Amino acid sequence: MPDSESLISRHVLPRFRIAVVGSGAVGCYYGGRLAQYGRDVHFLMRSDLDHVRKRGLRLHSKQGDYHLQKVNAYGSPDEIGPVDLVLIALKSTANTALDHLLPPLLKPDGSTMLMTLQNGLGNEEYLAERFGADKVLGGLCFVCLNRTEPGVIRHIAHGKIEMGEFCGLPLPRTWEIHGELKRCGIVCSVLPDLGLARWRKLVWNVPFNGLAIAGGGVDVGQILADEDLLSLTRGLMREVIGAAKALGHEIPWSFAEKNVENTRSMAAYHPSSLIDFLEGREVEVEAIWGEPLRRGFNAGAEVGRLETLYHLIRRAVTRRERGEA
Amino acid sequence: MPDSESLISRHVLPRFRIAVVGSGAVGCYYGGRLAQYGRDVHFLMRSDLDHVRKRGLRLHSKQGDYHLQKVNAYGSPDEIGPVDLVLIALKSTANTALDHLLPPLLKPDGSTMLMTLQNGLGNEEYLAERFGADKVLGGLCFVCLNRTEPGVIRHIAHGKIEMGEFCGLPLPRTWEIHGELKRCGIVCSVLPDLGLARWRKLVWNVPFNGLAIAGGGVDVGQILADEDLLSLTRGLMREVIGAAKALGHEIPWSFAEKNVENTRSMAAYHPSSLIDFLEGREVEVEAIWGEPLRRGFNAGAEVGRLETLYHLIRRAVTRRERGEA
Repeated sequence: MPDSESLISRHVLPRFRIAVVGSGAVGCYYGGRLAQYGRDVHFLMRSDLDHVRKRGLRLHSKQGDYHLQKVNAYGSPDEIGPVDLVLIALKSTANTALDHLLPPLLKPDGSTMLMTLQNGLGNEEYLAERFGADKVLGGLCFVCLNRTEPGVIRHIAHGKIEMGEFCGLPLPRTWEIHGELKRCGIVCSVLPDLGLARWRKLVWNVPFNGLAIAGGGVDVGQILADEDLLSLTRGLMREVIGAAKALGHEIPWSFAEKNVENTRSMAAYHPSSLIDFLEGREVEVEAIWGEPLRRGFNAGAEVGRLETLYHLIRRAVTRRERGEA
Repeated sequence: MPDSESLISRHVLPRFRIAVVGSGAVGCYYGGRLAQYGRDVHFLMRSDLDHVRKRGLRLHSKQGDYHLQKVNAYGSPDEIGPVDLVLIALKSTANTALDHLLPPLLKPDGSTMLMTLQNGLGNEEYLAERFGADKVLGGLCFVCLNRTEPGVIRHIAHGKIEMGEFCGLPLPRTWEIHGELKRCGIVCSVLPDLGLARWRKLVWNVPFNGLAIAGGGVDVGQILADEDLLSLTRGLMREVIGAAKALGHEIPWSFAEKNVENTRSMAAYHPSSLIDFLEGREVEVEAIWGEPLRRGFNAGAEVGRLETLYHLIRRAVTRRERGEA
């Protein structure tokens, strides 16, 4: 296991001051990778704060385990102060917390970049409305992670970030962040159209995350093996593609079947929303189903399947919260 | 409690020979009312046969209890032989049994009338394809019944039958059956358009029976009280009305909201499909959701909500059968 000193010496010195807001599995994994390579990373933490301050952060991965012994971990954003880049990895259900968590992290000259690594739709817009659209970038994380205990992240598979500007084409700063991520060993690409990419990801997330819950707690293999759930998967994928098209994002219809085929190798994979649901954590209902539904509906697309799924998932969450499930 | 002799003497003698096929709550209730008034009724029974032969049939009702001591109950249709009218009250999921249950009941001159009292769509068509469309009538039963134990039916509320010809306008025979039912105390009306009436009933049955199951085992009051389930109820009602319209059945859009309002007084009512589901009995998935879905889809109507509900109910039934629920 390499220690952080040797890695710092192998790389350029930090250019950015980076804050990670929301230090669950995604925040700790990507923030941890950046810190591992000597970047100036500051983690805003809640539940794991004391543990990480004492024992550091551990990443277990097939690509090698890593123990970040000394972590800049804080309980409030005022302790961090202004940074160049904020990586936002909070659950989207907690977005209102950003209203008070982000202002202390913003530089007075307005140059702080806000990059949301959150799921689904609406997160860039949330940031744009409050802090200015020009500050906002988004990243789609294709990664399987688990926070197995406080301060310990298990990296199961993948890890790519596809990133882009919220408003339009990539800028020099987009490529700078991209370069920094790549230099820290993160597989990364720059998207010419972040919105299109978000909708493409929803083609998978809407049916598989949704039916895993609505189908009664099933993995993706069980969804593919069940005639009814597979039929619904295809119907939902077509609706998501139709909604995307109505909004000007060109996704070919064949992308549905391609997604079904690609999923066959995933077998017993539990979609993240199902894990959230089963473990009693908040499910990102609005980001994954509610916001796509509203946008598709407003664009005149047929979204009856999505609407039904959305309401049944909300209902399932309500029942779980009331202890009826 | 009046005994059957006095009732017989008060009314005309039986004109029809009547067979009741499927002697659950509906068959026993309506067949029992006819027998109570001296009609020549023959019950084809399975599970309750021995009990009813020994102890007769009991109806508990706010309109007065009744004990039919001597019941013509049979285990096979050959023991009954040809009749003038067959009342079919079998679960629609058992329709294939009609292929061998009905032929012994048919008169050689082709005059036997087959009147299905079953739920949903497709039952008249099933009979028509096998025994000739001209024989077929249908009746919609608006009644709350429970079979509380073998040979015992509890009549909770209502009781009306709306009946009509499968093919077109009422005939003299339609009015004859109507008259017989009325003379036996059954509230009854003749429909000019049976198909329209079946679709109107589905406007209630599709959402309330469906969401009671898909919503996790809830009564109609809970459906109305839950924001998500109520929203889905309205969406499903609009889809059913839209499908009916596409098939030429004119139901006004306002019928949806009227149904919602009328349901408010039903409070803790458990739709029959939910009771079937919870008690491990067959759910009439195809008659209530599958067939309306297929017909609406083929007519070009938007039926995404109905499709989603259909598949999720099938999935829930599969899980229950496998003991996963």
